[in-house]
Amino acid sequence: MSPAVVNHPVPRVDAYEKVTGRARYAADLYFPGMLYGKVLRSKVAHARIKSLETNAARQMPGVHCVLTADDLPGEPSWCTYLFLARDRVRYTGDALAMVAAETREQAEAAIKAIKVEYEPLPGVYSIEEALAPGAPQVQEYAPGNIVQNTHWPVRKGDVAAGFAACDVIIEREYRTQYIEHAYIEPEACVVVPDPVNNGVIVYGSLQNPYMTRWAVATALGLKLGQVHVIQQTLGGSFGGKEEQMGMMCGRAAIMAVKTGRPVKMVNTREESFIESSKRHPFRFRYKIGATKEGKILALEAELVDEGGAYNSQAQFMNWRACVHAAGCYEIPNVKVDVYAVHTNKVYAGAMRGYSSPQIIYAQEQLMDELAAALNMDPVELRRQNALRPGSITATGQQLVDQTVPLVEVMDAVIARSNYYARREKYARERARGGSKRRGIGLVVSFRGCGLGAETYDATGGMITVASDGSVTVRSGLTDNGQGLSTAHAQIVAEELGIGMENIIYTRVDTTTMPDGGMTVASRGTFTGGKPMQEAAREIKKILHGVAAEQLGCRPEDLEGREGIIYCRQDPARKVTFQEAVRMALQRGYTLTSFKWYQPEPPVWDRPTGQGKAFPTYTYACVVAEVEVDMETGQVEVLKVTAGHDVGQAINPALLQGQIYGGVAMGLGMALTEEIEFDQGRILNPNFDEYIIPTALDMPAMETILYESEDYHGPFRAKSMGEAATECIAAAIASAIADATGKTVRELPANLERVLLGRALKRGGGA
Amino acid sequence: MSPAVVNHPVPRVDAYEKVTGRARYAADLYFPGMLYGKVLRSKVAHARIKSLETNAARQMPGVHCVLTADDLPGEPSWCTYLFLARDRVRYTGDALAMVAAETREQAEAAIKAIKVEYEPLPGVYSIEEALAPGAPQVQEYAPGNIVQNTHWPVRKGDVAAGFAACDVIIEREYRTQYIEHAYIEPEACVVVPDPVNNGVIVYGSLQNPYMTRWAVATALGLKLGQVHVIQQTLGGSFGGKEEQMGMMCGRAAIMAVKTGRPVKMVNTREESFIESSKRHPFRFRYKIGATKEGKILALEAELVDEGGAYNSQAQFMNWRACVHAAGCYEIPNVKVDVYAVHTNKVYAGAMRGYSSPQIIYAQEQLMDELAAALNMDPVELRRQNALRPGSITATGQQLVDQTVPLVEVMDAVIARSNYYARREKYARERARGGSKRRGIGLVVSFRGCGLGAETYDATGGMITVASDGSVTVRSGLTDNGQGLSTAHAQIVAEELGIGMENIIYTRVDTTTMPDGGMTVASRGTFTGGKPMQEAAREIKKILHGVAAEQLGCRPEDLEGREGIIYCRQDPARKVTFQEAVRMALQRGYTLTSFKWYQPEPPVWDRPTGQGKAFPTYTYACVVAEVEVDMETGQVEVLKVTAGHDVGQAINPALLQGQIYGGVAMGLGMALTEEIEFDQGRILNPNFDEYIIPTALDMPAMETILYESEDYHGPFRAKSMGEAATECIAAAIASAIADATGKTVRELPANLERVLLGRALKRGGGA
Repeated sequence: MSPAVVNHPVPRVDAYEKVTGRARYAADLYFPGMLYGKVLRSKVAHARIKSLETNAARQMPGVHCVLTADDLPGEPSWCTYLFLARDRVRYTGDALAMVAAETREQAEAAIKAIKVEYEPLPGVYSIEEALAPGAPQVQEYAPGNIVQNTHWPVRKGDVAAGFAACDVIIEREYRTQYIEHAYIEPEACVVVPDPVNNGVIVYGSLQNPYMTRWAVATALGLKLGQVHVIQQTLGGSFGGKEEQMGMMCGRAAIMAVKTGRPVKMVNTREESFIESSKRHPFRFRYKIGATKEGKILALEAELVDEGGAYNSQAQFMNWRACVHAAGCYEIPNVKVDVYAVHTNKVYAGAMRGYSSPQIIYAQEQLMDELAAALNMDPVELRRQNALRPGSITATGQQLVDQTVPLVEVMDAVIARSNYYARREKYARERARGGSKRRGIGLVVSFRGCGLGAETYDATGGMITVASDGSVTVRSGLTDNGQGLSTAHAQIVAEELGIGMENIIYTRVDTTTMPDGGMTVASRGTFTGGKPMQEAAREIKKILHGVAAEQLGCRPEDLEGREGIIYCRQDPARKVTFQEAVRMALQRGYTLTSFKWYQPEPPVWDRPTGQGKAFPTYTYACVVAEVEVDMETGQVEVLKVTAGHDVGQAINPALLQGQIYGGVAMGLGMALTEEIEFDQGRILNPNFDEYIIPTALDMPAMETILYESEDYHGPFRAKSMGEAATECIAAAIASAIADATGKTVRELPANLERVLLGRALKRGGGA
Repeated sequence: MSPAVVNHPVPRVDAYEKVTGRARYAADLYFPGMLYGKVLRSKVAHARIKSLETNAARQMPGVHCVLTADDLPGEPSWCTYLFLARDRVRYTGDALAMVAAETREQAEAAIKAIKVEYEPLPGVYSIEEALAPGAPQVQEYAPGNIVQNTHWPVRKGDVAAGFAACDVIIEREYRTQYIEHAYIEPEACVVVPDPVNNGVIVYGSLQNPYMTRWAVATALGLKLGQVHVIQQTLGGSFGGKEEQMGMMCGRAAIMAVKTGRPVKMVNTREESFIESSKRHPFRFRYKIGATKEGKILALEAELVDEGGAYNSQAQFMNWRACVHAAGCYEIPNVKVDVYAVHTNKVYAGAMRGYSSPQIIYAQEQLMDELAAALNMDPVELRRQNALRPGSITATGQQLVDQTVPLVEVMDAVIARSNYYARREKYARERARGGSKRRGIGLVVSFRGCGLGAETYDATGGMITVASDGSVTVRSGLTDNGQGLSTAHAQIVAEELGIGMENIIYTRVDTTTMPDGGMTVASRGTFTGGKPMQEAAREIKKILHGVAAEQLGCRPEDLEGREGIIYCRQDPARKVTFQEAVRMALQRGYTLTSFKWYQPEPPVWDRPTGQGKAFPTYTYACVVAEVEVDMETGQVEVLKVTAGHDVGQAINPALLQGQIYGGVAMGLGMALTEEIEFDQGRILNPNFDEYIIPTALDMPAMETILYESEDYHGPFRAKSMGEAATECIAAAIASAIADATGKTVRELPANLERVLLGRALKRGGGA
C-alpha cells in the first residue's frame, strides 16, 4: 500500500505561525527588567592591546555592567574562541568588552565611550601569506599557521604509476571566496537567570542548542544541566548559527549572571557580517590524468582552505572534503591532501555543503577541462568514469548494500533538460556572433548521507501519545527552517496511521531531550528520522496489541491508516486510533517511547584515508543554462534543471523548497557573493554591497526527485539539505565556460573573471 | 554496603532557591502585555440567575474582555464543574463572569460593575438536609443528592452472626468538619497564547499539571498536546491545587485566547477560601462488637461524606475510605457502606489523608469507647486485634509478601513516649483535682501505599546524563513542597554512585514527560521512585559496561560510589563516573533512559469490596499528650510521639519534616480549624477567623522512623506524605478524652465540645 502521509506534499507544521506573523523569533522575546547587551569589537585585524579604558562607559546612564576579559567568571575561551580577548586581537571582530544597559541605545553609547589603544602587529591575510616562511603566527598553538588536526590525507593505489599510464594529464588551480551565510534573521538571544538550578535559561536563534549549552556552561563555569537552552524559531542558519551563537549566548549569560537580569543581544547586520563565521575559501591544486579513451587513471590534489583567526570545524569539514575531493568517479589511483590555515580574518565555519560546493565547483571545472584536453564530450567523460553499484570510491569504500543511481539521475536530467539539443542550439547561436552568448553546463556529484565516519552519527527521538490521541514529537535536532519538524511529523503520522492534525511539534529544549548531536550533515531526516520511526513503531505495537485483543484478530493482521486501525482481511472490523489509545492507557501502558539510533562504529584509517566513509550517498546531476553579455561580463542564469537521488521524498514540496533555496544560494556563490577585505577588515558588511540574489535573479527551475530503493534512512529517505545547493555554482560556472569558451578558475564569476577567464585548452597542459 | 546518598538527610535540592527568595512562584511571573483576570462569583448559594448585565463593565478603563457563559469557546464544563455558570448557581463561589484588564484594580472594578439579579432557590446545607425526602436537588444528574458512583460497599463474613457472638456491642456516631487546605501560597497562574501549536502555555501553582492540561484543553476545545503546562514552585497544595487550578487556568486560558494576551490570575485569600475545595466532612455511624476478652468479631459502618455542590474525587476517595473504614485490625465480619452527598456548599475534594484523618479519628475514638465498655486497656485492645503478618484485612487481602510491623511500631512508640508511666502520672495528677487536667492518647493506623486498586498506579521516570556528567532527572510527578525532587535525586544519585551535586532537577513540564498520573496518594516516592531507579540502573549498566572494558574486569564486579567506579576486589582499579560517561558517549551510546512503571492489574470486586487493595501498607502509631483547661475548654498539646513504618527513609530529614507538618495540620483539625457557614456562605474566609496553628502552638515532637524490609518501593521506601498527618487529630482527641473523661464525638474539639463531650461509658451501650 502506498504511504498516506509520507511522500505527500503536506503543508509545513509551522506554516500557520509563519504566515500569520506569530512565529516568535528570539528578538521577539521580552522579559521584565531585561537589559540589552552590546559588544565592543576590535577595529584592527592584528594588534596588541595597550590599554582599554572603561571608566567613562561605566558612568553612563542606564549602564548596568561593563565587562572586560578580567571579569569573566568561567573559562576565558571555548573551543578556540575568546569570549573577550585579553592583550591581543587576531581579527577585526575579536570582542574586547561588553556592556549591558537598559536600552540598546544606552548600550551602544557606552560601547562608543570605551577607549582602546592598539599596537598594530603584522598580519597574514591570504593562504599564501599564511604559509610563507617566517609568517606572523596567528595562534600560538598553530605553528606555520596550519590549523590543528585539519590535515586529512587520502592514499589509494599508486598515483605515480597511474599518471605514467595516462595519455593526457592536466594540472589546474581553482579558488573560491569568503561567503556570508546571509540568513535573513541576524543572530539573537535572551539569557535569563534561573534560580531553580542556579543557572540560566537561554532562548536563541540556535542551530545547535547543545553546542550553545556547552559554550554557556563554559563561559559561566556551570554544569551542562544548569544551562537550559530553548530554541526559538529560526530565520535561517545554514551552518552559521553554531559557534557564533555559543559565543553570543555565552556573553549574554555572563552579563545576565553579573547583573541578575535577563540580557538580550541582537546583532545588527553589520555586527553579523563582522563576527559571524563564513564559508571557507579554498585553493585547489589538481592534477588529473586519463587514457585517450577517457578512462581516468590518477588524480592528485592539494586542497587548502582558509580558516581565519579561529578554528571552526575545519578538522571535521576537511575530513568530508577528503572523502569527496576526487568527485563521484571511480579512479584507481588517488592522492589527496587537505589542510586549513589561519589568517587574521574573520573565521570560517560550517556552511551548507560543508566544503562540497567549493569542491564540486573545482572538480567539475577540472572535468570540463580534462574533456576539452581529451577532445571528448564532457558528459561522456563523466558517464564513463561515474560511480556505479560495486565501484570503489577514492576513500576505498566499495558501493555495495546501497543504491548508486548516478548514471540514472544523469540520464533523467539530460532528458528533462533536453541537454544535447540545447547545447547544439546554443553553439549554433554563438557561431552566429553577437554580444550575448548562451551556454549550458552539466555537473554531477555524490554526497555522503549523515555524519558518516566523522563521528558516531547517533541521535534520539521521543514520542508521547496523550489520552486524546494527540501526539507530541520531540527531537534533539532543530528545525532551522528546512522543515525538519514537518518531516518528523510525517514519519510519525505514517507509522501510527494517523493524520498530521494529530501531531504536536516542539522546538528543541535541552532539558527535554538528550544531546543527539548537531543538526548538520543533512542528517535531520536521514538520521533523526530513524529513532522517530522506531519510537512510533513501539507505540504502534502496543496500540495494535490492544486493538487486536478487542477485535479478536492477530496484531500482525492490523493496519493503521487515517486514524482507523482495521483488520486487513475484514476492514469492517476496526477501532479508532483514539479508542486504542484510551484502552492502552487504561491498562497502565505508557504511550511514550524514547529511542536512540546508534549506528555502526566508524571505520577509518587516517594515514591512508581509506575506510567506510558513509552508509550511503545521495547522487545529483544539475544542468545550468546561462546567457553572458560579452561586453560587460554580466551573466544571467536562464534555467536550472536539478535531479537528485532522494531515496524517497518524505515531503516532495519540502525537497523542492530545499532545491529552490539551494539554487539561490549557489547562484550567489557563482556570480555575486564575496566578502571583500582590506587588511582583514570587511569592506562590504551589509546587503548594499554584499549582493545576494533576489527573487528577480532566479532562473526557471525544474526539479527531478529520483527515487531509489535504499534502505538506510527512514522510509528510504536520503539526505537532501546540502545536496540541494552543492552543484549549483559548479553548473553555472560550467555553463559560463560553455558560453564564453573560457574556464572560470576563481569564484565568484564576476564581470572581470568572466571576461578574463582562462580559455579551455584542447590537448592537455595547464 | 550501606547507601551513600539514600537514607541520609541531604539538603533539599531546592533549598538554595527557597532560602534566598529566588524561587519563582506563579505570581512572580510577568509577561509583556500581560492582563489580570478576575472572576465574579455568586453571592448566594442556590439561585436562578434572572439577569447578568455586563455593559457597564465592558466600558471601563483598561478592560479587554468581559465574558459570560455565552462566550465560552470550548466545553462549558469540565468534570462536573462549570467554567462559568449559566442560568443557575449552586454555591456561593460559582463563577458567573470574568474580566481581563490591564491592572488587577481595573479588573476588580469591572467585576464590581457587573449587575446580577438572583431568584433564590431553596438549598440543602447539611448531610441530613441533603438526604431528607423531597430535598431540593443540587445536581440534575444526582437524584436524592447522592454523588454519582460514590457508594463503595465492603462485605466480609457475616456481621449478624458476628454480632450475635459478641459480649459487648457499642454504636456510636462521629462527625468531622469542613477544613481548608490553608496553603500559604494562594492559587495563581499565567496563561500565555502559544502560536507554535496554536495553543497556550500555562504556568501555575499546580499539583497536577496533566489534570490542568486536560481542563484547559476542554475549556478551549483544543487537543491536549496544544496545551503546554509548566509547573512553578508551589507554596503548598495538600490536594488543594488540583481541580481548582484546572478551573482557574481554564478561565485564564479562555481570556488569553480571547484577548491574544497573557493573562494572570492570582486569588486573594478570600477568593481562595470561597472557591477552593475543602476536606470532606464525614458523618460516621459505627457499630462494633467484641468478646469480653477483647476479640473484635464484627464491625458495621455507614460513612457519609459531604461533597458540596460539585463532585471532586469522592468516587475515588470513598474507595480508599471503604478500604480503611474498619481500621488496622483483623475483624472477621465487616459491613461498610460509604457514600457522598451533594449540598449547596463549596465542594470538597482531595486533601492530605484523603479520608483517613477523618476515619482514624472516628475509628480510634470508637476503639477507646469499646475499650472503656470492655473495661480493657485501650492499648491492649488494639494490640490484641492489630493486623499482623498473614492477617486478612476487612477488604479480604491477606497480608503476605510484605512487612506488617504494626505491633513493633506500637511497641517502639510506647517505649519512646513512656506511655504507661505517663498515663499513670497524668491519672494521678487528675485525681488530685485542679482545673488543668492532662491526658494521653495512643492511636494506630495503616495506610495503603500508592493508588492501589483505585486505578493503574503507573508512572514514568527519565534521566539524561550529559557529557560533563551532570544528570537531569525528570518526572511527571510534582514537587509540591514535600521534597519529591530531592527524593528522586537521591534515588538516582545512589544508583549511579555519584553525589547529589551532579543532579539537575526539573519541574514538571507536560511536553517533556507523559502523564504519569496525579501526585497524590503518597505515591511520589513510592511509585514515582521506581521508574527513576530503573532508568538509573539502565544507565549504570551502560557505564559499568564501558568501565569494565577499560578496567579489564566484569561489569558485575564493579561498584559505583561518590563518583568513582571501581573493582570491588581491587579498588585501586577504577575510573571516574565522568570518564565512563565520556567513553560511553564517544561510542554512540545514549545516556538517556525513560522507564515506565506498570503495576499488576487492579483486583477488586465492587459488590463485596473484596480484593487486593494495595501492594503494601505503612503502619503508624502516634501518642499525644494534652493539657485541658476544664474551666475554658482550652486544649494545649504538650507532646506528640509519632512512629511510622517507613520501610526505609530515602531522606530522614524530609520524613521528619513531613511529620512536623503533619502534626501542625492534625492539630488544626483537632482543635481549631472549621469552615463556618450561614446558608452556604462562608463566614470565616480568612486567617483572622479561620485559625490554623502557628509555630507557638506546636507541641514537643518526637519521631520514630521504623525501618522494615519491604521490597515494593524503591530502596524499600513506603509511603509517608499522608501517613504523617492521619493519626494526629485522632491521638489528640483520644488524649482529650483521657484528660476529661469525655469522648470528643465531633471535630474540631473546640471549647464547647471539649466541655460538652460525651462521657466514656463503661459496660457498653451508646
